[in-house]
Amino acid sequence: MGVSAFFRLFQPRDKVFYTLFEQVADNLTSMSEYMVEGMKSQETITEEFYRKIEYYEHANDKLTHSIFVELGKNFITPFDREDIHQLTSSLDDIADFIYASSKYALLYKSPFIPAFTTFAVLINDSVLELRKAIYNMRDFKKPKEVLASCVEINRIENVADDVFSSELSALFESKRDVLDVIKIKNVLEYLEDVTDKCEDSANIIESILVKYS
Amino acid sequence: MGVSAFFRLFQPRDKVFYTLFEQVADNLTSMSEYMVEGMKSQETITEEFYRKIEYYEHANDKLTHSIFVELGKNFITPFDREDIHQLTSSLDDIADFIYASSKYALLYKSPFIPAFTTFAVLINDSVLELRKAIYNMRDFKKPKEVLASCVEINRIENVADDVFSSELSALFESKRDVLDVIKIKNVLEYLEDVTDKCEDSANIIESILVKYS
Amino acid sequence: MGVSAFFRLFQPRDKVFYTLFEQVADNLTSMSEYMVEGMKSQETITEEFYRKIEYYEHANDKLTHSIFVELGKNFITPFDREDIHQLTSSLDDIADFIYASSKYALLYKSPFIPAFTTFAVLINDSVLELRKAIYNMRDFKKPKEVLASCVEINRIENVADDVFSSELSALFESKRDVLDVIKIKNVLEYLEDVTDKCEDSANIIESILVKYS
Repeated sequence: MGVSAFFRLFQPRDKVFYTLFEQVADNLTSMSEYMVEGMKSQETITEEFYRKIEYYEHANDKLTHSIFVELGKNFITPFDREDIHQLTSSLDDIADFIYASSKYALLYKSPFIPAFTTFAVLINDSVLELRKAIYNMRDFKKPKEVLASCVEINRIENVADDVFSSELSALFESKRDVLDVIKIKNVLEYLEDVTDKCEDSANIIESILVKYS
Repeated sequence: MGVSAFFRLFQPRDKVFYTLFEQVADNLTSMSEYMVEGMKSQETITEEFYRKIEYYEHANDKLTHSIFVELGKNFITPFDREDIHQLTSSLDDIADFIYASSKYALLYKSPFIPAFTTFAVLINDSVLELRKAIYNMRDFKKPKEVLASCVEINRIENVADDVFSSELSALFESKRDVLDVIKIKNVLEYLEDVTDKCEDSANIIESILVKYS
Repeated sequence: MGVSAFFRLFQPRDKVFYTLFEQVADNLTSMSEYMVEGMKSQETITEEFYRKIEYYEHANDKLTHSIFVELGKNFITPFDREDIHQLTSSLDDIADFIYASSKYALLYKSPFIPAFTTFAVLINDSVLELRKAIYNMRDFKKPKEVLASCVEINRIENVADDVFSSELSALFESKRDVLDVIKIKNVLEYLEDVTDKCEDSANIIESILVKYS
């Protein structure tokens, strides 16, 4: 039993990190579900949609801040401080890039293309797996289930990569107005970044898992 | 009293880090003040302006290098090595992105828009608060003052975010030549990155503060 | 003798990290040599070229994964875990950005310009120095040689920076179709990112060197 595991037996205080990570996962899930709903309408993204996404992004910022405050107060953590810090930042990036994609699509009046919805669905799938992984991380009791989710998140990222490539190829051939090409390309880049950030989070979770179980 | 605090009492050697961070802050202040001056003329950015910004960027590189060398030599540091490394890199990013924005604006002959000056002023405001925070960090004696600066830097970043959005919206509607849109957009992105990097630095300082005071 | 050095004498297990880093260096060398060859033909980049680059990128992913697995299994490492993690990620970024540049050039049908070859040669030069540095890192027996390679990698990055600036200036003046400007600019950005990532790797190696020799 490692030092960390030893302390875990006696210090319930470190449970707060699991709870906070679960709240982040819940918030990201609501955010990505709302995103799918909003995108599925396939019309111009509305101000209301953007405001709601902004609300989730702010909620994530507050949870991130809470985790950092706990990290400052607690000597005992369920896994390395450095890992908690990295995982928190990486999950926060997911919210930031979902927000950025919506902002870009709305404020800069990007034309809406069906691939935005395709991405929203992929992002939602990835976030749901991430949520599963985070809930299964508690006390390192379900390493196999966590690993399976991480593998699935990596698979989804590969799909997203292919969607991005083929959409960008099509966009360059589309004879659309160049400014519209620039706008759509930017939204697609932000959406693809979201799936990258999901993969980053999964990789961090996997490396934590390898260390502790 | 933590182990780190204990060592601090007996090891004046670690003071070198405070001094070096203050020198970085002073250099960034001169750099951003020069930037405001140069931008306020609101004409095409000159070769002379670019060279001066380059000079400050090189000066920052040298200080960054000195901090890393000290980090290699000193077993005793005023706060976690990892935090020193992160703060140093983050401050270096500020210089790099100010440099990138100037380089882009000059070498690629971007048209000059008034928002560049708006950003230069916001960047200078942010760097001045960062300088205050760094000087007040010494020996963790003024945590409230440091925290107030960090809050202010976050506020400035939010303002910069709004300026960026509205300027980009206006740019897309401007009927300018597409190549000029691309150039101006790139300069604006670098300028907005600078305020992000100031916020990153403030967040790192805040997390150090929470740990040690 | 530091704690780490003490353990090194008795724990051959940590040698696995040197071997894995050398394999990464060998793979990056093959990748960048193939890149120079492929680019030197100076025609449209072929599907075959892209597939081969993709092969090297996947090979690098596997090595990265092996290093992370070893990091999870080994309590004893030849240098700080954090440094191993950073160096691994940074070397992986080199493969990722070489891959991204090829993908962009091929899939998005970017016009081919001679500067792509110039960059491929610079990247190959930089990777060869990186390989030297990594082989000379073993047991910290050749610090001077390692340092000389790091200095050379930094020099190459400065050259790459200048090539990037002048090529982009020329591109904006080129009266090419705007979509082609966007495509070429993106490829150049990825290529320049590769030399940045080589420099990042060299900086990490230098900081490890300073700590241990």
